[in-house]
Amino acid sequence: MIKLGVNQYGKAETRLVRVDRGDRHAITDLNVTTTLAGDLDATHLTGDNSGVLPTDTQKNTVYAFARDGVGEPEEFGLRLARHFVDTTPTITRARVRVEQYRWERITVDGEPAHHSFARAAGTRTATATYDGTTAWVVSGVEDLTVLNTTGSEFHGFHRDRYTTLAETTDRILATAVSANWRHESTDSPWAESFRDARAHLLAAFAETHSRSLQQTLHAMGERVLRHRDELVEVRLALPNKHHFLVDLEPFGLDNPGEVFFAADRPYGLIEGTVLRDGAPEEGLAWW
Amino acid sequence: MIKLGVNQYGKAETRLVRVDRGDRHAITDLNVTTTLAGDLDATHLTGDNSGVLPTDTQKNTVYAFARDGVGEPEEFGLRLARHFVDTTPTITRARVRVEQYRWERITVDGEPAHHSFARAAGTRTATATYDGTTAWVVSGVEDLTVLNTTGSEFHGFHRDRYTTLAETTDRILATAVSANWRHESTDSPWAESFRDARAHLLAAFAETHSRSLQQTLHAMGERVLRHRDELVEVRLALPNKHHFLVDLEPFGLDNPGEVFFAADRPYGLIEGTVLRDGAPEEGLAWW
Amino acid sequence: MIKLGVNQYGKAETRLVRVDRGDRHAITDLNVTTTLAGDLDATHLTGDNSGVLPTDTQKNTVYAFARDGVGEPEEFGLRLARHFVDTTPTITRARVRVEQYRWERITVDGEPAHHSFARAAGTRTATATYDGTTAWVVSGVEDLTVLNTTGSEFHGFHRDRYTTLAETTDRILATAVSANWRHESTDSPWAESFRDARAHLLAAFAETHSRSLQQTLHAMGERVLRHRDELVEVRLALPNKHHFLVDLEPFGLDNPGEVFFAADRPYGLIEGTVLRDGAPEEGLAWW
Amino acid sequence: MIKLGVNQYGKAETRLVRVDRGDRHAITDLNVTTTLAGDLDATHLTGDNSGVLPTDTQKNTVYAFARDGVGEPEEFGLRLARHFVDTTPTITRARVRVEQYRWERITVDGEPAHHSFARAAGTRTATATYDGTTAWVVSGVEDLTVLNTTGSEFHGFHRDRYTTLAETTDRILATAVSANWRHESTDSPWAESFRDARAHLLAAFAETHSRSLQQTLHAMGERVLRHRDELVEVRLALPNKHHFLVDLEPFGLDNPGEVFFAADRPYGLIEGTVLRDGAPEEGLAWW
Repeated sequence: MIKLGVNQYGKAETRLVRVDRGDRHAITDLNVTTTLAGDLDATHLTGDNSGVLPTDTQKNTVYAFARDGVGEPEEFGLRLARHFVDTTPTITRARVRVEQYRWERITVDGEPAHHSFARAAGTRTATATYDGTTAWVVSGVEDLTVLNTTGSEFHGFHRDRYTTLAETTDRILATAVSANWRHESTDSPWAESFRDARAHLLAAFAETHSRSLQQTLHAMGERVLRHRDELVEVRLALPNKHHFLVDLEPFGLDNPGEVFFAADRPYGLIEGTVLRDGAPEEGLAWW
Repeated sequence: MIKLGVNQYGKAETRLVRVDRGDRHAITDLNVTTTLAGDLDATHLTGDNSGVLPTDTQKNTVYAFARDGVGEPEEFGLRLARHFVDTTPTITRARVRVEQYRWERITVDGEPAHHSFARAAGTRTATATYDGTTAWVVSGVEDLTVLNTTGSEFHGFHRDRYTTLAETTDRILATAVSANWRHESTDSPWAESFRDARAHLLAAFAETHSRSLQQTLHAMGERVLRHRDELVEVRLALPNKHHFLVDLEPFGLDNPGEVFFAADRPYGLIEGTVLRDGAPEEGLAWW
Repeated sequence: MIKLGVNQYGKAETRLVRVDRGDRHAITDLNVTTTLAGDLDATHLTGDNSGVLPTDTQKNTVYAFARDGVGEPEEFGLRLARHFVDTTPTITRARVRVEQYRWERITVDGEPAHHSFARAAGTRTATATYDGTTAWVVSGVEDLTVLNTTGSEFHGFHRDRYTTLAETTDRILATAVSANWRHESTDSPWAESFRDARAHLLAAFAETHSRSLQQTLHAMGERVLRHRDELVEVRLALPNKHHFLVDLEPFGLDNPGEVFFAADRPYGLIEGTVLRDGAPEEGLAWW
Repeated sequence: MIKLGVNQYGKAETRLVRVDRGDRHAITDLNVTTTLAGDLDATHLTGDNSGVLPTDTQKNTVYAFARDGVGEPEEFGLRLARHFVDTTPTITRARVRVEQYRWERITVDGEPAHHSFARAAGTRTATATYDGTTAWVVSGVEDLTVLNTTGSEFHGFHRDRYTTLAETTDRILATAVSANWRHESTDSPWAESFRDARAHLLAAFAETHSRSLQQTLHAMGERVLRHRDELVEVRLALPNKHHFLVDLEPFGLDNPGEVFFAADRPYGLIEGTVLRDGAPEEGLAWW
C-alpha cells in the first residue's frame, strides 16, 4: 500500500517593503516565506481543499500585518506564525522565515538624507516556528562574505594516495558566512542580539589564528554563545572560497603571497554546530 | 559550557566531464559533492588536522575514480562513498551527491554525429550514503519544468478575512519538479529505474486532472511507486509557478484563457512525501 | 554647457504566455522587451511627461496584441514596433526584442499529450526595429550549449614571454552559442528560416574540424548564409568553455583524453561577424 | 560571396586578488576582461593561429602585471591595453575592462582589523581602450541600488487606448544604477574622481524631486559633469524597480504609503546620456 507521508506548503518569497514616515523616513525590506503543516490529507488524496488556506491568502496576510508595523523580523515572524496556527482549523504548525535586506541611509555633503537609501551587503534572517503551544526563534545571516589575507594555516592533515595538496602556513582564508542561531526563548532583545551576534562572528573570524576553517567555525560559534546568554546554539555553513597563489616563475617573477587567483568551483564546504551544554530541546526550531 | 555539535565537511561541486571514446563518443557530465563526517573534534577544537582528509584530496579522488569509467551516477556515488569511509580512519559516514547534466547527440542531416552534443534541459541526481555497514541510494531530478494549459482547478478552499483569491475551474498549472526517490536496496537497475521513474512523473503530471497542486504531487509520487518495485519513497518539492490571466477588459477585449502573465515571486511551494507501507527504515538515506 | 545625449526607454521582460486551444493545445512562452526613442527631451530636462508613453502601457500593449495571436516572434515584434511608432507622436524609433522559450509536448506511453509540456533547453530570439519608414529584423539563439569531444586543435599560436599554454592537437571544444542573424527584408519565412539556421549552426559546429574557435565561428556563420538566401549577416559570440585534461599521474594513472575538469572562469570569448558581400546597409538592425 | 566582418577575442573574467602587505594589509579584488582586435583573418579563414595571442596568455599577463602592484583599476587597464597592442604584431586595438569589488575592513571592538575584510555592496568599473596611438578611459559603477521613499511623482504622461496607469504624486523610486563616465584624458586623479563621481550620483538621486526617472537620470549625469571637470560624458542605465502600493481595502485597512510589493518583472528601463558641449570625440572610448 502506498500512503502520504510528511508534507507542508506555503507561499515563498513575498517581497514586502514597509515605509515608516517619521521625522526621517525608514524602510524595512523583507522577503517572507510562510510554511504551514497540519491535517492536509484531503487535498492530497481527493483534491478536497476545505482545509487549505490558500498561499495567496498567506501573502495577503503578510501585507495586512505589515500595516501595523513590522518591527524586528523575529517579532513579525512570530506574529504571523501564531496567527496561521491559531486561526486555521487544519493547521497545527507554521514556520515563517524572513530575510531582511540591509539598506544604509545616503549621506549628502555629510548630512543624512531624509528619505534616500542605498542597498548594503548581507542579509539578516529570522525564522519563527509555532505549533499551537510553543514557539521557537532562530536568527541568522546570509551572504556575509569575509576574507583574511593572512593568519591562516593548513597542514598536518591526513594523507592518502590521492593527496597532492601542499601544506601551508600562510594562506588566504575567505568564506561566505551562512549562520543561524537559536534563541532560548521568544523574548530576546532582537535588535541588540542580532547586532551583537553578527559583530562577534566578524570579530572571531578576524581574531582567530586559523589552522583550519573548522577551527575558525568553532571559534565563531563559541564566541557568539559566550557573549550572548539568550542564545543556545549556533549552526554555521562556511564555503571555503579558495584563493590560489599564482605561479609567476614562468615569467621570471616571485610571488611572495601577493597575487592570487580566486576560484569558483569546486569549493570546500564546512558545516558545524556549536551549542551550550544544557540547552533546551530544539523542538521544531530547525524544522 | 559550550561544546561542538553535529558537523561535517567536504568538497562541493567538483565538475567532471568523462569522455568515452567508443565507436561513437559518449560524455558523462557531472557535478559531484562529497560530504564526510566522523571524529573531527580535534580540527574544530585545536586545529589538529591529523584526522582530516583534505577536500582537495576528495576532489582528486573523484577524478581518479573516473579513470575507470563512471557508469550510472548512483554507482559512482556508491564507489566514492564506500572508499572514503573504508580508507579514512576518522571518517564514519560519507555522502556523495551527483548531479548529471543531460546532453543530446547532435544530428546532421538526420544522422547522429560522432562526437558532437548539445545540452538538454533537466538534471538527474543521485545521492549515495554509507556508514561503514549500510549504504543508501536516493535518485532524483531537478529543474524539470512542466506546464498544463488546462485540467487544473482550485476551489473550495478555506477562507478567512484575508482571503481574496477567486475560485477557478480552469487554470494553468506549472511547476519546476524537484523530486527524489529512495531505493529499497543498492542493486536497482539504475538506468532503467531512472528513465522509468522520470517518465512516470511526467505522465502523472500530464494525466492528473488536478484540483490542487497537492493532489498532483501525490499522484506523481504514487505513480512512481506503483510502477517501480525497487523504490519505496518519493519526496517532491513543487513550486507553483503562477500564471495569471491578464485582464484585457480595459482594452475592450475578452480573454478566454489565452493570454497569461507568468509571475516570478511570490510563488506557492508544495512539498510532500509519498511512501510504500512497510518501507524499510530510512536510516541515513536523506542525511 | 551640459546637454542631453542619446536616450531611450521601455519596458523590459514582460513575461507573456499565450495558449492556443486547438485540437491539441499549444503554448507560446515569451519574454518581451520594448524600447522606444524619439523627442524625449522634455521629460529629461523638466519632468514634462506629455510625450512619454508609460512603460506600463507598453506592457499592456504586449498583452493586448497577444489576444489576436502571437505567431512567429519576428511577426509579433514587427506588429508591436510599428504600432508604437505609428501611434505615439513623440516616438520615432521602436525596438522590440522577443525571447521565446522552448517547450516540448510531453508524451505518455508514446502518445503526445493534449495539453502538457516540458521546458526544453535553448532560447529563440527575435528583434524587430522600426523607424517610421523602414523595419529591420534580426533572429537568433541564446543558451545553445554544444560540445565536441574531439576534432579540435589549437597550436601554432603567437608566443610571448607570458605564454605557457601547451599546443594541442586534440581537445574538447565547448561553447554556449549566442548568435544573431539579420534578414534582408521583413518577409522571410520566419519559422522555417529559424529552424534551418539553427540546424546549420549545429551542423557546422559538429562537422568543422577546428584549429581555433575562431575558425569554427566563421564556419558556423558561413554555413548559415550559404544555405539561407534571406539572411545577409550573422553575428556570433562564443565563450570558450574550457575543459582541462586532469593530470592523473600523481595517482599512477594515465589519462588518454578521458577525464576532464570543466572550468568556470576565466573563459575565452570569441566574437565575430560573417556577412554576405553586397548586403544591404544594416541601418538600425543592430540598434 | 561571404566574408568575415568585425571580430575580436579575449579572456573574460580573470579573477585576481592582490594583497598588499603594508603596516596593515590591503586587498584589491578584480575581475578583468581583456579584448583584442586586429588582423585576425587567418585564424578565422584557415585556422592559422600565428597571429593569435592565446587568451591563456592574456590571463597570465594580468597576473604577471599584478606582481608590480595594481593601483587604480584605470591605471591597471591602461598598462595592460598598451602592452597588448605594443607587443603583439597583429593586434591593433585592445580593451581592458576591470570590475573592482568593494571590501571594508572589519572592525573589532571599534578598532580596524589588521588583515580582515568584509565584502560591501557595489562594483567599481574601469575600461581602458588603446589603438596604438590614443587611449581612452571610462569609469563607472554597477549594482548600486538606491531607493527614495518619497519625492517622486509620475503624471501628465501620454495616454492611448492601452493606458491604464494611474497618475501619482507620491511613489517609491528605486533603481540599480549602472553608470559609466568618460574621462577627457588619461591622467585624471582616478581615485578621487571615482569617489567624487559616485558621491554626486548618490546626492543627485537623493536631492532630485523627481517627476520621472528620466529627469532623475539627467540630474545625476549633469551633477557629475558640473563637479568633475576631467569628465566629459555620463551614460546611465536605470531599471525602474517598481514598488506597488498594496491594496489593503479588502481587509478593511487603509494604506497611506506604507506597505509596498517589490516587483521583479517586468521593469521599466531608462537609458540616457549626458555630455559636455564641446567634449572631444568619443573615438573608441565606448567600443
